[in-house]
Amino acid sequence: MTATDLVGGVFAAALTPMTPAGSPDHVLAVAHCRWLLDNGCDGLAPLGTTGEANSQSLADRMALVGALAEAGLPAERVVVGTGGCALGDTVALTRCAMDAGFRNALVLPPFYYKGVSDDGLFAYYAALIEGVGDADFRLYLYHFPQMSTVPLSAGLIGRLRDSFGAVVAGLKDSSGDWANTRHLIDAFPGFRVYSGSEQFLADNLAAGGPGCISATVNVTAPLAARVFHAAPSARQRVQEELTAIRLALQGFPTIPALKRLLEWHTGNPGWRTVLPPLLALPEEAADKLREMIAGFPLFRDEIALAAAVG
Amino acid sequence: MTATDLVGGVFAAALTPMTPAGSPDHVLAVAHCRWLLDNGCDGLAPLGTTGEANSQSLADRMALVGALAEAGLPAERVVVGTGGCALGDTVALTRCAMDAGFRNALVLPPFYYKGVSDDGLFAYYAALIEGVGDADFRLYLYHFPQMSTVPLSAGLIGRLRDSFGAVVAGLKDSSGDWANTRHLIDAFPGFRVYSGSEQFLADNLAAGGPGCISATVNVTAPLAARVFHAAPSARQRVQEELTAIRLALQGFPTIPALKRLLEWHTGNPGWRTVLPPLLALPEEAADKLREMIAGFPLFRDEIALAAAVG
Repeated sequence: MTATDLVGGVFAAALTPMTPAGSPDHVLAVAHCRWLLDNGCDGLAPLGTTGEANSQSLADRMALVGALAEAGLPAERVVVGTGGCALGDTVALTRCAMDAGFRNALVLPPFYYKGVSDDGLFAYYAALIEGVGDADFRLYLYHFPQMSTVPLSAGLIGRLRDSFGAVVAGLKDSSGDWANTRHLIDAFPGFRVYSGSEQFLADNLAAGGPGCISATVNVTAPLAARVFHAAPSARQRVQEELTAIRLALQGFPTIPALKRLLEWHTGNPGWRTVLPPLLALPEEAADKLREMIAGFPLFRDEIALAAAVG
Repeated sequence: MTATDLVGGVFAAALTPMTPAGSPDHVLAVAHCRWLLDNGCDGLAPLGTTGEANSQSLADRMALVGALAEAGLPAERVVVGTGGCALGDTVALTRCAMDAGFRNALVLPPFYYKGVSDDGLFAYYAALIEGVGDADFRLYLYHFPQMSTVPLSAGLIGRLRDSFGAVVAGLKDSSGDWANTRHLIDAFPGFRVYSGSEQFLADNLAAGGPGCISATVNVTAPLAARVFHAAPSARQRVQEELTAIRLALQGFPTIPALKRLLEWHTGNPGWRTVLPPLLALPEEAADKLREMIAGFPLFRDEIALAAAVG
């Protein structure tokens, strides 16, 4: 393990606060990342699905990577989302992250064409690794078939590991299918399979996995950290609290609801802005979100939402 | 109608020949576009799904637009694909096309997030029109739910037409659902609804539509033109020939098979290159394609494939 190998634990798929003009707000983004690291997160996955990365222009994505690097976020705690549909852009973004000091990248499969073959996906990831051209690069595959429409099979992972060894370092499993996560942990020793939801954090750790990378950790980080640091014998009880909040949050459109919670948490209405085609949370849903939060007083107090939700 | 309003008729969703390094081959691309216009095409839709636009880097897409403009392709015969997931990139690409003299753009909905609302899609297209900021811009919506996963509803089209009038000029309907095409033609007078397959060319024209924009027109252009120019009484018979070839071609992976046919047509093996995650047509499928073509001697001769397929 070198100094910048990705740590295990609790990762937030970090939200991206936006300026009114619809570009990443670097000051607010850095402040949010610092708050997450100071309040339970072991690591961050900026510029993923939750970060609205694919709704940001290529130039905006690159500029945000630069701002996070300049802020001195520790490289061993960051896995940067760099995946898009075009190999050339994905190579450029990944090189940008490497140049900024972030060697760990979380990379979606190209997601425009449907029904693509494992041979085609292998060719894509192989060309990415060759295009990045740096033995220090660490590729984390991003398996999220409900959103990308392109699943990453165990067969593909095995071929990539056989061909590129430790460069193919791990995977975020956002399928929600614990059996798949478990199978990948067991099938590929040394391959770091993060669960895509903190609902599976205790299970992931018990199975020998490294932890979770999750959207809702943007607000559940303090509680998720208590699961991570709990003694194995006590872990399941804290996990049940965490799971209850995660499942309650799943009843809302994820990114708009999380941004509304961050608005309440920070008092900064700039947090409400989302990029099209997403929309800010409607007031009716915000009212339901307030009601929901009021039912979880510990969670509410832990991220200082009392002022907003009573 | 101004000089650069889009014409009706037979459009090829133009293939993009690639260099061995995986960038558009401008010389071959221009030659192919000219061949299409000289051999039955009324117009071209470069940089769409068939053109592998979303597999090309943003810089490569922009450079290809420039090359097509420099070659003097007539603006009233070109609708440039400029859609991606990020509004900022889509605005930049559309402005690039406008600056090059192409006012007509075919624009996918943002296709990463799933289950997005009509309100969100309206916000996206409205922001595009405002971002382009040119009254000469003509937006053609690209309805291809099987690939984009994001359908464009009649309700959305109506709202966009009500808000932006003639700027929202038309649509390519690649759903394969003729009833949908027919409904949109009837529902929005003056809105130009092109069928996404030449299989529906005669029906489209009979219903008062402008024609078709199709992948397989890259090879069926001469025959499709005969349908377009046929007297209405004779059109159905020629359409049946055209439909038979279209349906036969649908049995193959579209882009790899069309590129193989262009390789045979031109004798240039450079045509075989596709961008990942797509793969060149396997030899076994190429053999089947040869057999298929041999069963359509008129088509074979019309695009000079005899040497390749016997």
